[in-house]
Amino acid sequence: MSAPAISRYPVPKLADLPEDVRARMLEVQEKAGFIPNVFLTLAHRPDEFRAFFAYHDALMLRASGLTKAEREMIVVATSGANDCLYCIIAHGAILRVYAKNPFVADQIAVNYRDADITDRQKAMLEFALKVATRSVELVDADFDKLRGHGFGDEDMWDIGAIAAFFALSNRMAALTRMRPNDEFYLLGRLPKAK
Amino acid sequence: MSAPAISRYPVPKLADLPEDVRARMLEVQEKAGFIPNVFLTLAHRPDEFRAFFAYHDALMLRASGLTKAEREMIVVATSGANDCLYCIIAHGAILRVYAKNPFVADQIAVNYRDADITDRQKAMLEFALKVATRSVELVDADFDKLRGHGFGDEDMWDIGAIAAFFALSNRMAALTRMRPNDEFYLLGRLPKAK
Amino acid sequence: MSAPAISRYPVPKLADLPEDVRARMLEVQEKAGFIPNVFLTLAHRPDEFRAFFAYHDALMLRASGLTKAEREMIVVATSGANDCLYCIIAHGAILRVYAKNPFVADQIAVNYRDADITDRQKAMLEFALKVATRSVELVDADFDKLRGHGFGDEDMWDIGAIAAFFALSNRMAALTRMRPNDEFYLLGRLPKAK
Amino acid sequence: MSAPAISRYPVPKLADLPEDVRARMLEVQEKAGFIPNVFLTLAHRPDEFRAFFAYHDALMLRASGLTKAEREMIVVATSGANDCLYCIIAHGAILRVYAKNPFVADQIAVNYRDADITDRQKAMLEFALKVATRSVELVDADFDKLRGHGFGDEDMWDIGAIAAFFALSNRMAALTRMRPNDEFYLLGRLPKAK
Amino acid sequence: MSAPAISRYPVPKLADLPEDVRARMLEVQEKAGFIPNVFLTLAHRPDEFRAFFAYHDALMLRASGLTKAEREMIVVATSGANDCLYCIIAHGAILRVYAKNPFVADQIAVNYRDADITDRQKAMLEFALKVATRSVELVDADFDKLRGHGFGDEDMWDIGAIAAFFALSNRMAALTRMRPNDEFYLLGRLPKAK
Amino acid sequence: MSAPAISRYPVPKLADLPEDVRARMLEVQEKAGFIPNVFLTLAHRPDEFRAFFAYHDALMLRASGLTKAEREMIVVATSGANDCLYCIIAHGAILRVYAKNPFVADQIAVNYRDADITDRQKAMLEFALKVATRSVELVDADFDKLRGHGFGDEDMWDIGAIAAFFALSNRMAALTRMRPNDEFYLLGRLPKAK
Repeated sequence: MSAPAISRYPVPKLADLPEDVRARMLEVQEKAGFIPNVFLTLAHRPDEFRAFFAYHDALMLRASGLTKAEREMIVVATSGANDCLYCIIAHGAILRVYAKNPFVADQIAVNYRDADITDRQKAMLEFALKVATRSVELVDADFDKLRGHGFGDEDMWDIGAIAAFFALSNRMAALTRMRPNDEFYLLGRLPKAK
Repeated sequence: MSAPAISRYPVPKLADLPEDVRARMLEVQEKAGFIPNVFLTLAHRPDEFRAFFAYHDALMLRASGLTKAEREMIVVATSGANDCLYCIIAHGAILRVYAKNPFVADQIAVNYRDADITDRQKAMLEFALKVATRSVELVDADFDKLRGHGFGDEDMWDIGAIAAFFALSNRMAALTRMRPNDEFYLLGRLPKAK
Repeated sequence: MSAPAISRYPVPKLADLPEDVRARMLEVQEKAGFIPNVFLTLAHRPDEFRAFFAYHDALMLRASGLTKAEREMIVVATSGANDCLYCIIAHGAILRVYAKNPFVADQIAVNYRDADITDRQKAMLEFALKVATRSVELVDADFDKLRGHGFGDEDMWDIGAIAAFFALSNRMAALTRMRPNDEFYLLGRLPKAK
Repeated sequence: MSAPAISRYPVPKLADLPEDVRARMLEVQEKAGFIPNVFLTLAHRPDEFRAFFAYHDALMLRASGLTKAEREMIVVATSGANDCLYCIIAHGAILRVYAKNPFVADQIAVNYRDADITDRQKAMLEFALKVATRSVELVDADFDKLRGHGFGDEDMWDIGAIAAFFALSNRMAALTRMRPNDEFYLLGRLPKAK
Repeated sequence: MSAPAISRYPVPKLADLPEDVRARMLEVQEKAGFIPNVFLTLAHRPDEFRAFFAYHDALMLRASGLTKAEREMIVVATSGANDCLYCIIAHGAILRVYAKNPFVADQIAVNYRDADITDRQKAMLEFALKVATRSVELVDADFDKLRGHGFGDEDMWDIGAIAAFFALSNRMAALTRMRPNDEFYLLGRLPKAK
Repeated sequence: MSAPAISRYPVPKLADLPEDVRARMLEVQEKAGFIPNVFLTLAHRPDEFRAFFAYHDALMLRASGLTKAEREMIVVATSGANDCLYCIIAHGAILRVYAKNPFVADQIAVNYRDADITDRQKAMLEFALKVATRSVELVDADFDKLRGHGFGDEDMWDIGAIAAFFALSNRMAALTRMRPNDEFYLLGRLPKAK
């Protein structure tokens, strides 16, 4: 039996890719041990690939008042609201690794209200979910509420922009029927061997 | 009385911007006669600015089976569904100009079903709106329906990806309370002077 | 090419109409310079025509604590929530004229929260939208909130009744696929010639 | 203990009403044995009262391809969708009387799909509910479907217009917290005495 | 004409039923004068029948801080939200009997906010409806609000568990197209003969 | 630090439980290696505990045209729609074990349309989700569609009744804030040791 398709669209061979796109893939493969399918799927269109990951990195790698785990919480919560399998599974794995917690990703994907996180993080996710699902209703009071939890203006931009970027990402995953790599399902669930 | 703010966030002065960001603004100003506020608002974060417009151009300027007017139809219809004032007003103006039609943007922003467009374009917008508002429900039958209207696989990526990109864009406009430039409201509504 | 139909239903000739219905049309034509299609469309049934405009006038022309522009704001906001093209375009035009503001109608049709209006007017529209979209949830607290903004009991009836009347109007426009007159799109967008 | 209020607004005394408004009330009292509270509630504003009942009569009393019972079915089904107690109770009573059926009103108010009515009547109510709850989605196919059940163009106007008029009526009942008369609850539930 | 089916599924004859199931039916028939169709419908599967009524009795017959009428209010309000005809009609009848009030069941089935009940009971129904329709959003504040109305922890379990049990019951009624007995429609509507 | 609470309500000690309830717990502990928290949480009320598990067993253990894995698919899909963490995690684990597939539970909890299951199973889940989320809309055509996939009448009762029972279960989990046991998260994800 052949492996299930990882995309509705053709997946290019590494050899056929532009140098910079291939380099990016090999770099992530070096680090993760495999190439996440989002790279292979989006490489179908190198210009969009470049813009996508440039945007991703600008938000997820920048110095920020949010920890890396918190940024992944936003990804997982909003992808849960959008029912995006790829992002829940892939970013759930990354969140487990960053948070060193095998439970928190599943909790947040389903219902942040009862997750093992701080009240500050719950307020962050409430804001992110409003951006994700009914952004027209955003008002000053939503920003004030976050300020009350110690978030600064740039933190709020981070929260909102990550929710906005994964609104794009979730829809691209749905469009391409992007399949999560098998590796992600187990990642971060086992105690580290010593 | 001072002019209304164009963003919840600080708007940088042109002089303070990185050279490439400023160049991009001057280029659009040269062409349009003014700088659309999306440039000024997003310039608050140059890295995200660069990624945003690289993504935008990759989708909106590429050779495609969709005309430029059709691509703007997708923007206007999905921004209408998301109740995003900036994108409805700004891209509504661009659509009027491309389509040389002073009515079609308002029609599509409210209800593409009764707009003065072809059945093929209505099918395109139905698909785009599904990506925009309930992408989890996308199934093969949706793609087959577009094929029946003569759309190819790459056209469908274009439709879905534009809907996805403006899912991001609409949310950034809501986050920043991005104000449409006054100029957009009238653009393309008047018969061209001869 | 023939002009697009202005109704799914037959549109009577002026000569064939009952005297009072025709008189009403000529009166509005005299004032506006054209006959809005709502008159032509509803004249298909003179009894309903008479009741419709009697109701309209009872609400929109009466002495009221609401200005005429405010009443049109309610029409535009609730018609926006109902995605009714005819009422957004026609009453958007009237609102621009009454408010002497070329932007406010488009703002309110999409999102009153960020429109250039007062907090009192935003509270008025919040109430109107509740009547329009989930009237079963109306409770005393909603009335108290308006009282806090200085609205009296009769003002609240006006707000609610206008929202209710355009719930009817929006549905009649959808039923008949009522087409906005081309003239409305531009009305009130240009600075008055001096 | 005082009787519960029948309106959030003052209810005029018959003696204080304009002659035509009072005459209408006495006429209905003569026929029904009591004055339905919708008359007393709306009489707070005689002009709107007149327009409301003129509209009501134009739709509900005209010669039509729909029976009187069918027209009341539309009222009950759409008022059910809007959760309007007054109209469900009052028009449910009228429907029981017209249909000579003590069960059908309760059935239709909750779920027309399983009511003891014909397939043609179910199609009629499906259309009416689309007008009531998502009229923007009305397309030609909806009209064609009714034609397949033998409805003519004027019948469809009747169906849609009744749904539209009670969209108004339901919202006025919510605004005024209009209380159904006690009499309505039992009307048409008992076998006629012989 | 044959009587309308009371279930999509076969309805067993009393003679063919297991002894305990039949006994339960005869007991209710003795008390009510007829066998409610929920017994006949669910008897199609005796094991599920037994569990269903054991669960029902555990909640509805136990000693509780809620009166029997209040428990039926929860059933009627949540069944109204789920548009379940059988439960609205059957439990509406029971509620009328327990509350000795011919109006309150219809009121609560449609809109508890304006029903003739206490504020405490409205708070109870607000909580029950949250359990019924969006239980993921339950938070501590919802429990605190009930505490403010004098409800204890066990009362809150009762409220939530009744809403939960009728979430099951409403769906079984929909699955089987369970028909309310004619008797229920009139029960509790007439003044007791003396 | 103390362990997180497994319920909003008191959790009884095994020693304090009625004999039959304790026996049931020890039996499951024997088999699973731990006591799932649903047993501990619901044991707060032994009568409801007994009815709950009697109902559960009547549906999940009976001879059926559905495999045990398919029945768990229904639980996972409908619990996903209800955002119920406990049931997604606990029954997701059981599904992985029954289906001998480490991926299918996560897939189905998020979007059955793209899961690695048969078309017949997708039709089953579509029906189950309709029962779970909008059962009022069930019509004969839904049953016919399942018949076309080879499901018999009793299979359809199973599908609908499992969806109905977990409508109850999901709400009890939300009411009690039932916490999934840590063990469930990893169960069925690792290749069996040989």
